[in-house]
Amino acid sequence: MTNKTLSDQLNWRYATKKMDPTKPVPQDKVDAIIEAIRLAPTSSGTQPFELILVTNQDVKTKICKAAGDQAQITDGSHLLVFAAWDTYTAERIDDVVQLNVEARGDLPMLNAYYDNLKSNYVPRDAEVNYAHAARQAYIALGIALVAAAEQEVDSTPMEGFDPSKVDEILGLTARGLRSVVLLPLGYRDPAADWLLPMKKVRKSRDTIVTLVD
Amino acid sequence: MTNKTLSDQLNWRYATKKMDPTKPVPQDKVDAIIEAIRLAPTSSGTQPFELILVTNQDVKTKICKAAGDQAQITDGSHLLVFAAWDTYTAERIDDVVQLNVEARGDLPMLNAYYDNLKSNYVPRDAEVNYAHAARQAYIALGIALVAAAEQEVDSTPMEGFDPSKVDEILGLTARGLRSVVLLPLGYRDPAADWLLPMKKVRKSRDTIVTLVD
Repeated sequence: MTNKTLSDQLNWRYATKKMDPTKPVPQDKVDAIIEAIRLAPTSSGTQPFELILVTNQDVKTKICKAAGDQAQITDGSHLLVFAAWDTYTAERIDDVVQLNVEARGDLPMLNAYYDNLKSNYVPRDAEVNYAHAARQAYIALGIALVAAAEQEVDSTPMEGFDPSKVDEILGLTARGLRSVVLLPLGYRDPAADWLLPMKKVRKSRDTIVTLVD
Repeated sequence: MTNKTLSDQLNWRYATKKMDPTKPVPQDKVDAIIEAIRLAPTSSGTQPFELILVTNQDVKTKICKAAGDQAQITDGSHLLVFAAWDTYTAERIDDVVQLNVEARGDLPMLNAYYDNLKSNYVPRDAEVNYAHAARQAYIALGIALVAAAEQEVDSTPMEGFDPSKVDEILGLTARGLRSVVLLPLGYRDPAADWLLPMKKVRKSRDTIVTLVD
Protein backbone atom coordinates (compact mmCIF):
# COMPACT_ATOMS: atom_id res chain seq x y z
CA MET A 1 0.00 0.00 0.00
CA THR A 2 3.09 2.21 -0.29
CA ASN A 3 1.66 4.04 -3.31
CA LYS A 4 -1.32 5.10 -1.25
CA THR A 5 -1.15 8.38 0.64
CA LEU A 6 -1.50 8.54 4.42
CA SER A 7 -4.96 9.99 3.88
CA ASP A 8 -5.87 6.93 1.74
CA GLN A 9 -4.57 4.66 4.48
CA LEU A 10 -6.48 6.48 7.24
CA ASN A 11 -9.67 6.31 5.18
CA TRP A 12 -9.13 2.59 4.49
CA ARG A 13 -8.63 1.61 8.13
CA TYR A 14 -11.46 1.31 10.66
CA ALA A 15 -11.89 -0.22 14.09
CA THR A 16 -12.56 -3.72 12.75
CA LYS A 17 -15.41 -5.38 14.65
CA LYS A 18 -15.23 -8.86 13.12
CA MET A 19 -11.99 -10.50 12.10
CA ASP A 20 -11.63 -13.69 10.04
CA PRO A 21 -10.01 -16.34 12.28
CA THR A 22 -8.92 -18.32 9.19
CA LYS A 23 -6.62 -15.56 7.90
CA PRO A 24 -3.43 -15.10 9.94
CA VAL A 25 -1.30 -11.99 9.38
CA PRO A 26 2.01 -12.90 7.69
CA GLN A 27 5.07 -12.48 9.92
CA ASP A 28 6.69 -9.89 7.63
CA LYS A 29 3.66 -7.62 8.03
CA VAL A 30 3.68 -8.02 11.82
CA ASP A 31 7.40 -7.24 11.75
CA ALA A 32 6.79 -4.04 9.74
CA ILE A 33 4.18 -2.87 12.27
CA ILE A 34 6.52 -3.60 15.19
CA GLU A 35 9.35 -1.78 13.44
CA ALA A 36 7.16 1.33 13.07
CA ILE A 37 6.38 1.16 16.80
CA ARG A 38 10.09 0.78 17.56
CA LEU A 39 10.86 3.89 15.48
CA ALA A 40 8.10 5.96 17.11
CA PRO A 41 9.45 9.08 18.81
CA THR A 42 8.99 9.38 22.57
CA SER A 43 9.71 11.98 25.23
CA SER A 44 13.49 12.39 25.64
CA GLY A 45 13.89 9.18 23.63
CA THR A 46 13.04 7.08 26.67
CA GLN A 47 10.68 4.69 24.82
CA PRO A 48 9.00 4.09 28.21
CA PHE A 49 6.87 1.13 27.19
CA GLU A 50 7.22 -2.43 25.98
CA LEU A 51 5.23 -4.52 23.54
CA ILE A 52 3.82 -7.92 24.37
CA LEU A 53 3.12 -9.82 21.15
CA VAL A 54 0.59 -12.54 21.95
CA THR A 55 -0.05 -15.36 19.48
CA ASN A 56 -0.87 -18.04 22.07
CA GLN A 57 -4.59 -18.78 21.71
CA ASP A 58 -5.10 -19.72 25.37
CA VAL A 59 -3.54 -16.45 26.52
CA LYS A 60 -5.55 -14.51 23.95
CA THR A 61 -8.71 -16.21 25.26
CA LYS A 62 -7.91 -15.14 28.83
CA ILE A 63 -7.23 -11.57 27.72
CA CYS A 64 -10.44 -11.62 25.66
CA LYS A 65 -12.40 -12.48 28.81
CA ALA A 66 -10.73 -9.53 30.57
CA ALA A 67 -11.80 -7.30 27.66
CA GLY A 68 -15.55 -7.78 27.59
CA ASP A 69 -15.26 -10.74 25.23
CA GLN A 70 -14.23 -8.60 22.26
CA ALA A 71 -13.69 -11.43 19.78
CA GLN A 72 -11.16 -9.57 17.62
CA ILE A 73 -8.62 -10.57 20.29
CA THR A 74 -9.16 -14.29 19.64
CA ASP A 75 -10.16 -14.04 15.95
CA GLY A 76 -7.11 -11.92 15.07
CA SER A 77 -3.89 -13.89 14.65
CA HIS A 78 -1.75 -11.47 16.67
CA LEU A 79 -2.44 -9.33 19.71
CA LEU A 80 -0.20 -6.37 20.55
CA VAL A 81 -0.33 -5.26 24.19
CA PHE A 82 1.24 -1.85 24.84
CA ALA A 83 2.63 -1.94 28.38
CA ALA A 84 3.99 1.29 29.85
CA TRP A 85 6.62 1.66 32.55
CA ASP A 86 4.95 1.86 35.96
CA THR A 87 7.37 4.69 36.76
CA TYR A 88 10.69 6.22 35.70
CA THR A 89 13.70 4.88 37.58
CA ALA A 90 17.38 5.84 37.56
CA GLU A 91 18.20 2.42 36.12
CA ARG A 92 15.74 2.77 33.26
CA ILE A 93 17.02 6.23 32.38
CA ASP A 94 20.64 5.05 32.71
CA ASP A 95 19.90 2.36 30.10
CA VAL A 96 18.68 5.10 27.75
CA VAL A 97 21.84 7.10 28.39
CA GLN A 98 23.97 4.03 27.68
CA LEU A 99 22.15 3.48 24.38
CA ASN A 100 22.79 7.12 23.46
CA VAL A 101 26.47 6.88 24.38
CA GLU A 102 26.87 3.78 22.21
CA ALA A 103 25.26 5.51 19.22
CA ARG A 104 26.49 9.08 19.62
CA GLY A 105 29.48 8.95 21.91
CA ASP A 106 29.89 10.07 25.50
CA LEU A 107 28.78 13.70 25.08
CA PRO A 108 28.78 15.93 28.18
CA MET A 109 25.60 17.66 26.91
CA LEU A 110 23.90 14.29 26.74
CA ASN A 111 24.85 13.30 30.27
CA ALA A 112 23.79 16.67 31.65
CA TYR A 113 20.44 16.37 29.90
CA TYR A 114 19.65 12.95 31.34
CA ASP A 115 21.00 13.83 34.80
CA ASN A 116 18.47 16.65 34.81
CA LEU A 117 15.77 14.29 33.57
CA LYS A 118 16.54 11.85 36.39
CA SER A 119 16.39 14.57 39.03
CA ASN A 120 12.97 15.58 37.69
CA TYR A 121 11.40 12.17 37.02
CA VAL A 122 12.75 9.76 39.63
CA PRO A 123 11.37 11.56 42.72
CA ARG A 124 8.04 12.19 41.01
CA ASP A 125 4.89 10.30 41.99
CA ALA A 126 4.76 6.93 40.18
CA GLU A 127 1.23 7.63 38.91
CA VAL A 128 2.42 10.86 37.28
CA ASN A 129 5.33 9.02 35.70
CA TYR A 130 3.11 6.18 34.52
CA ALA A 131 0.61 8.64 33.01
CA HIS A 132 3.46 10.28 31.10
CA ALA A 133 4.83 6.93 29.92
CA ALA A 134 1.34 5.85 28.82
CA ARG A 135 1.04 8.95 26.63
CA GLN A 136 4.24 7.97 24.85
CA ALA A 137 2.72 4.55 24.17
CA TYR A 138 -0.21 6.36 22.52
CA ILE A 139 2.16 8.11 20.09
CA ALA A 140 3.33 4.63 19.07
CA LEU A 141 -0.26 3.41 18.93
CA GLY A 142 -1.11 6.15 16.43
CA ILE A 143 1.88 5.18 14.31
CA ALA A 144 1.03 1.47 14.65
CA LEU A 145 -2.44 2.14 13.24
CA VAL A 146 -0.84 3.76 10.18
CA ALA A 147 1.66 0.89 9.90
CA ALA A 148 -1.13 -1.69 9.94
CA ALA A 149 -3.04 0.22 7.25
CA GLU A 150 0.12 0.48 5.14
CA GLN A 151 0.42 -3.32 5.36
CA GLU A 152 -3.32 -3.65 4.61
CA VAL A 153 -3.69 -5.39 7.94
CA ASP A 154 -6.79 -4.72 10.01
CA SER A 155 -6.52 -3.66 13.63
CA THR A 156 -8.77 -2.61 16.48
CA PRO A 157 -7.41 -0.33 19.19
CA MET A 158 -9.00 -1.30 22.52
CA GLU A 159 -9.09 0.53 25.83
CA GLY A 160 -12.06 -1.46 27.10
CA PHE A 161 -10.34 -4.06 29.26
CA ASP A 162 -9.39 -4.67 32.88
CA PRO A 163 -5.72 -3.61 33.08
CA SER A 164 -5.13 -5.35 36.41
CA LYS A 165 -6.35 -8.64 34.94
CA VAL A 166 -4.28 -8.28 31.78
CA ASP A 167 -1.25 -7.34 33.89
CA GLU A 168 -1.81 -10.53 35.89
CA ILE A 169 -2.32 -12.74 32.82
CA LEU A 170 0.93 -11.47 31.27
CA GLY A 171 2.91 -11.12 34.51
CA LEU A 172 3.53 -7.42 33.84
CA THR A 173 3.50 -6.09 37.41
CA ALA A 174 6.65 -8.00 38.38
CA ARG A 175 8.34 -6.42 35.35
CA GLY A 176 7.34 -2.89 36.36
CA LEU A 177 4.89 -2.63 33.48
CA ARG A 178 1.21 -1.72 33.21
CA SER A 179 -1.02 -2.61 30.25
CA VAL A 180 -2.24 0.54 28.52
CA VAL A 181 -3.97 -0.40 25.29
CA LEU A 182 -4.60 -3.52 23.20
CA LEU A 183 -4.23 -3.80 19.42
CA PRO A 184 -5.47 -7.03 17.84
CA LEU A 185 -4.17 -7.59 14.29
CA GLY A 186 -5.95 -9.66 11.68
CA TYR A 187 -8.12 -9.46 8.60
CA ARG A 188 -11.66 -8.16 8.45
CA ASP A 189 -14.53 -10.57 7.82
CA PRO A 190 -16.42 -8.31 5.37
CA ALA A 191 -19.66 -10.30 5.44
CA ALA A 192 -19.87 -10.34 9.24
CA ASP A 193 -18.59 -6.87 10.20
CA TRP A 194 -21.51 -4.52 10.90
CA LEU A 195 -19.23 -1.46 10.99
CA LEU A 196 -17.53 -1.98 7.62
CA PRO A 197 -20.44 -0.74 5.45
CA MET A 198 -21.00 2.31 7.63
CA LYS A 199 -19.72 5.76 6.72
CA LYS A 200 -16.66 6.94 8.60
CA VAL A 201 -17.66 9.65 11.05
CA ARG A 202 -15.33 12.58 11.70
CA LYS A 203 -15.86 16.17 12.78
CA SER A 204 -15.36 18.84 10.14
CA ARG A 205 -12.06 20.66 10.00
CA ASP A 206 -13.83 23.86 11.07
CA THR A 207 -15.13 22.10 14.17
CA ILE A 208 -11.71 21.11 15.43
CA VAL A 209 -9.32 23.78 14.10
CA THR A 210 -8.95 27.36 15.31
CA LEU A 211 -6.62 29.60 13.31
CA VAL A 212 -4.66 32.23 15.22
CA ASP A 213 -3.13 34.44 12.53
CA MET B 1 7.00 11.23 -0.38
CA THR B 2 4.15 8.80 -1.08
CA ASN B 3 6.51 6.30 -2.71
CA LYS B 4 8.47 6.06 0.53
CA THR B 5 7.45 3.46 3.07
CA LEU B 6 6.37 4.41 6.59
CA SER B 7 9.69 3.07 7.80
CA ASP B 8 11.50 5.43 5.38
CA GLN B 9 9.41 8.33 6.67
CA LEU B 10 10.06 7.48 10.33
CA ASN B 11 13.79 7.22 9.65
CA TRP B 12 13.76 10.55 7.78
CA ARG B 13 11.99 12.50 10.53
CA TYR B 14 13.70 13.68 13.70
CA ALA B 15 12.92 16.16 16.47
CA THR B 16 14.22 19.16 14.53
CA LYS B 17 16.24 21.45 16.77
CA LYS B 18 16.85 24.33 14.36
CA MET B 19 14.32 25.42 11.79
CA ASP B 20 14.93 27.86 8.93
CA PRO B 21 12.74 30.94 9.55
CA THR B 22 12.99 31.90 5.86
CA LYS B 23 11.18 28.75 4.66
CA PRO B 24 7.44 28.71 5.41
CA VAL B 25 5.50 25.46 5.02
CA PRO B 26 3.10 25.66 2.03
CA GLN B 27 -0.58 25.72 2.99
CA ASP B 28 -1.38 22.50 1.11
CA LYS B 29 1.15 20.61 3.23
CA VAL B 30 -0.23 22.08 6.46
CA ASP B 31 -3.72 21.10 5.25
CA ALA B 32 -2.58 17.51 4.61
CA ILE B 33 -1.16 17.28 8.14
CA ILE B 34 -4.36 18.67 9.66
CA GLU B 35 -6.46 16.25 7.57
CA ALA B 36 -4.46 13.31 8.95
CA ILE B 37 -5.11 14.58 12.49
CA ARG B 38 -8.80 14.95 11.68
CA LEU B 39 -8.92 11.35 10.45
CA ALA B 40 -7.08 9.99 13.51
CA PRO B 41 -9.14 7.41 15.40
CA THR B 42 -10.13 8.24 18.98
CA SER B 43 -11.92 6.47 21.81
CA SER B 44 -15.59 5.98 20.88
CA GLY B 45 -15.04 8.45 18.04
CA THR B 46 -15.26 11.38 20.43
CA GLN B 47 -12.25 13.27 18.98
CA PRO B 48 -11.93 14.91 22.43
CA PHE B 49 -9.41 17.57 21.48
CA GLU B 50 -9.08 20.60 19.26
CA LEU B 51 -6.22 22.01 17.23
CA ILE B 52 -5.02 25.58 17.50
CA LEU B 53 -3.08 26.51 14.39
CA VAL B 54 -0.87 29.49 15.24
CA THR B 55 0.80 31.52 12.49
CA ASN B 56 0.75 34.86 14.31
CA GLN B 57 4.36 35.68 15.17
CA ASP B 58 3.53 37.65 18.32
CA VAL B 59 1.48 34.78 19.70
CA LYS B 60 4.19 32.29 18.74
CA THR B 61 6.72 34.48 20.57
CA LYS B 62 4.60 34.44 23.73
CA ILE B 63 4.18 30.66 23.53
CA CYS B 64 7.93 30.31 22.87
CA LYS B 65 8.63 32.15 26.15
CA ALA B 66 6.25 29.72 27.92
CA ALA B 67 8.20 26.82 26.39
CA GLY B 68 11.73 27.48 27.58
CA ASP B 69 12.52 29.61 24.53
CA GLN B 70 12.53 26.65 22.14
CA ALA B 71 13.10 28.61 18.95
CA GLN B 72 11.45 26.08 16.63
CA ILE B 73 8.17 27.66 17.77
CA THR B 74 9.11 31.04 16.33
CA ASP B 75 11.38 29.80 13.51
CA GLY B 76 8.78 27.37 12.20
CA SER B 77 6.05 28.94 10.08
CA HIS B 78 3.19 27.08 11.77
CA LEU B 79 2.58 25.95 15.32
CA LEU B 80 0.03 23.24 16.08
CA VAL B 81 -1.26 23.21 19.65
CA PHE B 82 -3.14 20.07 20.62
CA ALA B 83 -5.75 21.08 23.22
CA ALA B 84 -7.73 18.33 24.93
CA TRP B 85 -11.20 18.63 26.46
CA ASP B 86 -10.91 19.50 30.15
CA THR B 87 -13.62 16.88 30.77
CA TYR B 88 -16.38 14.94 29.04
CA THR B 89 -19.81 16.59 29.21
CA ALA B 90 -23.26 15.44 28.09
CA GLU B 91 -23.30 18.27 25.53
CA ARG B 92 -19.97 17.24 24.02
CA ILE B 93 -21.04 13.61 23.76
CA ASP B 94 -24.44 14.63 22.36
CA ASP B 95 -22.63 16.50 19.58
CA VAL B 96 -20.77 13.28 18.73
CA VAL B 97 -24.07 11.35 18.71
CA GLN B 98 -25.60 13.98 16.40
CA LEU B 99 -22.67 13.67 14.00
CA ASN B 100 -23.13 9.88 14.00
CA VAL B 101 -26.87 10.17 13.37
CA GLU B 102 -26.24 12.49 10.42
CA ALA B 103 -23.74 10.06 8.87
CA ARG B 104 -25.24 6.69 9.80
CA GLY B 105 -28.85 7.32 10.67
CA ASP B 106 -30.64 7.24 14.03
CA LEU B 107 -29.66 3.73 15.10
CA PRO B 108 -30.92 2.46 18.47
CA MET B 109 -27.61 0.64 19.02
CA LEU B 110 -25.77 3.90 18.54
CA ASN B 111 -27.91 5.81 21.02
CA ALA B 112 -27.62 3.04 23.60
CA TYR B 113 -23.85 3.02 23.20
CA TYR B 114 -23.46 6.74 23.80
CA ASP B 115 -26.04 6.83 26.60
CA ASN B 116 -23.88 4.26 28.36
CA LEU B 117 -20.77 6.32 27.59
CA LYS B 118 -22.39 9.41 29.08
CA SER B 119 -23.39 7.59 32.26
CA ASN B 120 -19.77 6.42 32.63
CA TYR B 121 -17.87 9.58 31.64
CA VAL B 122 -19.95 12.56 32.76
CA PRO B 123 -19.94 11.80 36.52
CA ARG B 124 -16.25 10.90 36.44
CA ASP B 125 -13.58 13.17 37.91
CA ALA B 126 -12.59 15.87 35.40
CA GLU B 127 -8.89 15.03 35.78
CA VAL B 128 -9.56 11.41 34.83
CA ASN B 129 -11.58 12.55 31.82
CA TYR B 130 -8.92 15.06 30.79
CA ALA B 131 -6.19 12.41 31.09
CA HIS B 132 -8.22 10.13 28.83
CA ALA B 133 -8.85 12.92 26.31
CA ALA B 134 -5.15 13.84 26.32
CA ARG B 135 -4.23 10.26 25.39
CA GLN B 136 -6.49 10.51 22.35
CA ALA B 137 -4.63 13.66 21.32
CA TYR B 138 -1.42 11.64 21.48
CA ILE B 139 -2.81 9.12 18.96
CA ALA B 140 -3.33 12.09 16.63
CA LEU B 141 0.14 13.42 17.47
CA GLY B 142 1.70 10.13 16.37
CA ILE B 143 -0.23 10.28 13.12
CA ALA B 144 0.63 13.97 12.66
CA LEU B 145 4.34 13.13 12.89
CA VAL B 146 3.90 10.62 10.06
CA ALA B 147 1.85 13.12 8.06
CA ALA B 148 4.56 15.77 8.39
CA ALA B 149 7.21 13.27 7.27
CA GLU B 150 5.06 12.25 4.31
CA GLN B 151 4.91 15.92 3.31
CA GLU B 152 8.68 16.23 3.93
CA VAL B 153 7.87 18.87 6.51
CA ASP B 154 9.94 19.00 9.68
CA SER B 155 8.30 18.99 13.08
CA THR B 156 9.27 18.96 16.74
CA PRO B 157 6.89 17.47 19.29
CA MET B 158 7.16 19.45 22.52
CA GLU B 159 5.94 18.65 26.02
CA GLY B 160 8.32 21.09 27.66
CA PHE B 161 6.07 24.09 28.19
CA ASP B 162 3.89 25.66 30.87
CA PRO B 163 0.36 24.50 29.98
CA SER B 164 -1.33 27.09 32.21
CA LYS B 165 0.53 29.90 30.43
CA VAL B 166 -0.23 28.51 26.96
CA ASP B 167 -3.89 28.05 27.97
CA GLU B 168 -3.93 31.70 29.03
CA ILE B 169 -2.19 32.96 25.88
CA LEU B 170 -4.70 31.12 23.68
CA GLY B 171 -7.76 31.60 25.89
CA LEU B 172 -8.28 27.85 26.13
CA THR B 173 -9.66 27.60 29.68
CA ALA B 174 -12.83 29.52 28.83
CA ARG B 175 -13.36 27.04 25.97
CA GLY B 176 -13.01 24.02 28.26
CA LEU B 177 -9.69 23.08 26.68
CA ARG B 178 -6.22 22.35 28.08
CA SER B 179 -3.02 22.47 26.03
CA VAL B 180 -1.42 19.01 25.86
CA VAL B 181 1.44 19.10 23.37
CA LEU B 182 2.97 21.52 20.86
CA LEU B 183 4.03 20.68 17.31
CA PRO B 184 5.95 23.40 15.44
CA LEU B 185 6.10 22.83 11.68
CA GLY B 186 8.83 24.16 9.42
CA TYR B 187 11.97 23.19 7.57
CA ARG B 188 15.24 22.11 9.12
CA ASP B 189 18.26 24.40 8.94
CA PRO B 190 20.80 21.64 8.14
CA ALA B 191 23.87 23.76 8.82
CA ALA B 192 22.66 24.90 12.24
CA ASP B 193 20.94 21.78 13.60
CA TRP B 194 23.26 19.89 15.99
CA LEU B 195 20.94 16.88 16.10
CA LEU B 196 20.63 16.30 12.34
CA PRO B 197 24.06 14.65 11.86
CA MET B 198 23.60 12.40 14.88
CA LYS B 199 22.57 8.77 14.59
CA LYS B 200 18.95 8.00 15.46
CA VAL B 201 18.82 6.17 18.78
CA ARG B 202 16.26 3.43 19.32
CA LYS B 203 16.16 0.34 21.51
CA SER B 204 16.51 -3.00 19.75
CA ARG B 205 13.40 -4.97 18.93
CA ASP B 206 14.46 -7.62 21.45
CA THR B 207 14.62 -4.97 24.17
CA ILE B 208 11.04 -3.86 23.72
CA VAL B 209 9.17 -6.92 22.42
CA THR B 210 8.17 -10.03 24.39
CA LEU B 211 6.62 -12.87 22.41
CA VAL B 212 3.94 -14.95 24.12
CA ASP B 213 3.41 -17.91 21.82
